[in-house]
Amino acid sequence: MPVSPTPPLHQLSAWQAASLLARRELTAVDLVRACLDRIAEREPQVHAFVHLDADAALAYARTLDAGAVRGLLHGLPFGVKDLFDTFDLPTGYGSPIYAGQQPPADAAAVALCREAGAVLLGKTVTTELANMLPGATRNPHKPLHTPGGSSSGSAAAVADGMLPLALGTQTAGSLIRPAAFCGVVGYKPSHNRVPKAGVKSLSETLDTVGGFARSVRDMALLGAVLTGDARLADPAAFEQAGAPRLGWCQTPEWAQADTDTQQAWAQAEKLLAGHGAPLALPHSLSGLVAVQKAVQAFETARSLSHERLHHPHQLSAPLQALIADGLAISGARHALNLQATTSARQQAQTLFSNFDVIIAPSSIGEAPAGLEGTGDPLFCRGWTLLGLPCVHLPFAYGHSGLPVGLQLVGAYGDDHRLLAAAHWVHQRLAD
Amino acid sequence: MPVSPTPPLHQLSAWQAASLLARRELTAVDLVRACLDRIAEREPQVHAFVHLDADAALAYARTLDAGAVRGLLHGLPFGVKDLFDTFDLPTGYGSPIYAGQQPPADAAAVALCREAGAVLLGKTVTTELANMLPGATRNPHKPLHTPGGSSSGSAAAVADGMLPLALGTQTAGSLIRPAAFCGVVGYKPSHNRVPKAGVKSLSETLDTVGGFARSVRDMALLGAVLTGDARLADPAAFEQAGAPRLGWCQTPEWAQADTDTQQAWAQAEKLLAGHGAPLALPHSLSGLVAVQKAVQAFETARSLSHERLHHPHQLSAPLQALIADGLAISGARHALNLQATTSARQQAQTLFSNFDVIIAPSSIGEAPAGLEGTGDPLFCRGWTLLGLPCVHLPFAYGHSGLPVGLQLVGAYGDDHRLLAAAHWVHQRLAD
Repeated sequence: MPVSPTPPLHQLSAWQAASLLARRELTAVDLVRACLDRIAEREPQVHAFVHLDADAALAYARTLDAGAVRGLLHGLPFGVKDLFDTFDLPTGYGSPIYAGQQPPADAAAVALCREAGAVLLGKTVTTELANMLPGATRNPHKPLHTPGGSSSGSAAAVADGMLPLALGTQTAGSLIRPAAFCGVVGYKPSHNRVPKAGVKSLSETLDTVGGFARSVRDMALLGAVLTGDARLADPAAFEQAGAPRLGWCQTPEWAQADTDTQQAWAQAEKLLAGHGAPLALPHSLSGLVAVQKAVQAFETARSLSHERLHHPHQLSAPLQALIADGLAISGARHALNLQATTSARQQAQTLFSNFDVIIAPSSIGEAPAGLEGTGDPLFCRGWTLLGLPCVHLPFAYGHSGLPVGLQLVGAYGDDHRLLAAAHWVHQRLAD
Repeated sequence: MPVSPTPPLHQLSAWQAASLLARRELTAVDLVRACLDRIAEREPQVHAFVHLDADAALAYARTLDAGAVRGLLHGLPFGVKDLFDTFDLPTGYGSPIYAGQQPPADAAAVALCREAGAVLLGKTVTTELANMLPGATRNPHKPLHTPGGSSSGSAAAVADGMLPLALGTQTAGSLIRPAAFCGVVGYKPSHNRVPKAGVKSLSETLDTVGGFARSVRDMALLGAVLTGDARLADPAAFEQAGAPRLGWCQTPEWAQADTDTQQAWAQAEKLLAGHGAPLALPHSLSGLVAVQKAVQAFETARSLSHERLHHPHQLSAPLQALIADGLAISGARHALNLQATTSARQQAQTLFSNFDVIIAPSSIGEAPAGLEGTGDPLFCRGWTLLGLPCVHLPFAYGHSGLPVGLQLVGAYGDDHRLLAAAHWVHQRLAD
């Protein structure tokens, strides 16, 4: 008997599964069950979830199978970082302060996915209030390495085949970094293109809703629903996209990239030879990392005012330290930082006069060993401050055999062009 | 016996009251009781509150009187628009969907006020989900006229002497318009200078937390706490501020200003003769109102996804219509609108190369008669889209004897300069 060329159901791409589901050649129940089986098998090692509701998911899948096709994500299982409110599952924000909280409504991004027919399997692990203190999740490739954070569970679950799609958020590097460490595609949309209603707010200037998938086209399918931009779900846009003009930007932090990231960079240069040119950030875009850190600390310290006033002893030491840093920054200094952010965001538009997208490091290297931290968001801070859309592309492996990759960065609001370019680039890098 | 020159306690300015409280020449209990008495007397006509907790407020006031001075707002009563979460009072967002909801935490802005020693008296009326459908509040000056919206109760309560300070939000014109209609100072800070955590989110690009007071210095005192910018609470900054260079900007919508606003404008020109010059918005800043409307509709329709999917019959017809408008806008069009917003915000910086602040209309005219609507935010939409700080200054009266005024607009992040200029201007207009 020949071996079937199709992957096991739980490894199906979201795009393929959506096509089969829409043609009724696959049932939502079978797909959900395959993912639940995979979760049952692997969750004891990976610890991606804080809450699963298999019965509710299967019941909802049966409803979908019995009715009309709802939308782009009809029948696709998805997971949601436990920083998003859900009306039917408890929402703990990774903090003992909110243990067992049952919100009255879905976060807007969750509701949009459900409206498009997606089946919520469960809430995934976040670090404490999406900050530094890790949750229980382990890197699915090596259980003694971090999966990254703060969207730890979502990245690990998608990487491990538990789910084709998952939601996360980024304030410093919480989408791109776990995507890099787990070896999946991560997508941080343009700032404020995806609604944040119902997501625990830390820093309005920086917080961004995004997600994870195992391919760029899968990622774009989820992105189409999150942004409402139908171009992201148009197969022709991806097939017809030509070679993008790439701006090769090592960033001012390049000296901190380790040999694994350096080798991935060299490998990309070889595979994409002839496409684009080096891009050095202008002087007007220096110092972004310091401004991002200060904006994050100031805004987080004030956004978490209720928690620091009423529950100080339920905040971890690293989060208390961040809050203390934030409270030490004057409001006058913060006003200057916000003005600098506005100017930098405008200045960033000029980066795209000669380039379609920027290629840049995602992380210092592969996922560090140890579960006491979630790694450094260094290479994400600047792009987050600029509000630019970013996509992490996994394609290489580091010295421990863990995934490494690079990110592509697009112009503000040009998410459709970024994702089409990312598809083109990823085909050349990962093949 | 000579008549005492001091106003009744409930009419004390926040600034005076704060000084007396800090010197222990006034107790928080007496001030809270005075405000509660005024509320008991006037609330049957004004309907500013959806929830009052007199006992809790008095108990907290006793605690404050017995302890150390907490901060800038020590002992000052304040009210909070029922769009902000409060951990100890129900929070209904002006919608039957959320009737009786008890959130687990204070919104960040509420927590910051309490940290500074303010005493929460109650939750004030908001329109339905801060949109068009009015609540029960009436204009305190004429009960058959609207108080404006969506921060109706907060503006009316401050205008009527029930409270010295109150919190509100603006997405189109929900701070400046009710301030204008009720005849109080309203302050919309620079976009995202005040944390929105715990405020029901409608449109990330536009939503802004601000407040109401009866004078600019009172407003700045609250602003200092909300923004963390100590310069706003510095008396010297206000006394030493010289004459600002005023950019007189009637805006492209001037033809829609009625005779009351036209007369207020003429009156201001006379009182401020010699200060500044006319300012016409450049072509690059045309069309702001249309972009603001489209951004608000698109983002509101998606932020309220849970509500429109699970509770469509509990949304009013006007809100359903706004949501339908928003859902009809493509994601591609919205991306262009966001790009246009970013460019316009940068372009707006050039307005302040020759001027310190802009003076502009706040409303079409005085508060319209009738309680079926809350008036038109026309003259606020553009400044909200630009994210610029705005202060409404009441100083004139229209044909019905209702208040009329104008707004000052500052450069992004220059809230301290705006408020100092507003103090200078208001002294000349209102004296």
